[in-house]
Amino acid sequence: MRADARDNRARIMTAADDVFGRSPGASTDDVAKLAGVGIATVFRHFATKTELLEAVLTLRLERLRDRALQLAGSADPGAAFYEFFTQVVSESASKLAIAEALTASGAAAGEEARAAGRGMREAFDGLLTAAQKTGAVRPDVRFAEVYALLIGASRGATAAGLEPDVRDRMLGIVYDGLKPRG
Amino acid sequence: MRADARDNRARIMTAADDVFGRSPGASTDDVAKLAGVGIATVFRHFATKTELLEAVLTLRLERLRDRALQLAGSADPGAAFYEFFTQVVSESASKLAIAEALTASGAAAGEEARAAGRGMREAFDGLLTAAQKTGAVRPDVRFAEVYALLIGASRGATAAGLEPDVRDRMLGIVYDGLKPRG
Repeated sequence: MRADARDNRARIMTAADDVFGRSPGASTDDVAKLAGVGIATVFRHFATKTELLEAVLTLRLERLRDRALQLAGSADPGAAFYEFFTQVVSESASKLAIAEALTASGAAAGEEARAAGRGMREAFDGLLTAAQKTGAVRPDVRFAEVYALLIGASRGATAAGLEPDVRDRMLGIVYDGLKPRG
Repeated sequence: MRADARDNRARIMTAADDVFGRSPGASTDDVAKLAGVGIATVFRHFATKTELLEAVLTLRLERLRDRALQLAGSADPGAAFYEFFTQVVSESASKLAIAEALTASGAAAGEEARAAGRGMREAFDGLLTAAQKTGAVRPDVRFAEVYALLIGASRGATAAGLEPDVRDRMLGIVYDGLKPRG
């Protein structure tokens, strides 16, 4: 791919992330306008809206995975776990909007997005295990229920456009439940 | 309404609750078959699929409100609060399927369902306040974040068809977070 084509592709994906993250019903035309390219250029890079949505969702999940892997090197595994949990929940409204747009486009998440999702879950599992070793998270909780809480808190935060302070107090309750009893 | 018409209406609503609760994409025809009535009878009682879905969702929410009001008379307000929370989350998969079918039918929840939702929330708020008075729930949490947790736990339990034991362990973490620190 030539440098200007790569630039266009990156600009289209950034615009799509923004546009669909704010409004799942947006059109590819809205994306082209924000990216400052013609609609033909969008379709040259992404043959369908579904393809574009899948690429954007995959990028989101890969970035979260990378963030988790980066936090895994942190000196304070407990703080790293809770920071990652908070970041996923804070970003959830726009991420869910993109996932919803993908579903509305008639497609289930394809193999690329599912692989990115698996990568993110594995990295999160690593953060949990490390946080449990230092005693920042109770030793008796398992990944399945912690992941269910992550999904649940994300959905709860998104429902009815939860205000940031309500979201933070909700997370405070969840985190108190995850910490060992003193 | 004559007695046999009332019977038919009740039978259609029970069938619709079952059919749409299991599969949001089901048709009014599936409902008629399970209810053992003709499709014309269904449409005599509910002019559109949306109308039927709205009636079923409203009934669900009214039953939850009634259950909360009944529990409000309990001798153990703490147990009543946690029992109601657990019941809402356990029923969430089928309730969300019905709400999803309503959204897919192109309608937002109408005034009837919204009023039933308000009634349920108010009754749940009453259970929370009583449980806080007895010390079964921390005095410093507010309704907004507890309700966000209820929505979140329901969504988390529904995501990926969460198994009952994972759901129970997830709720255990949430409940530990809601209980006063010893």
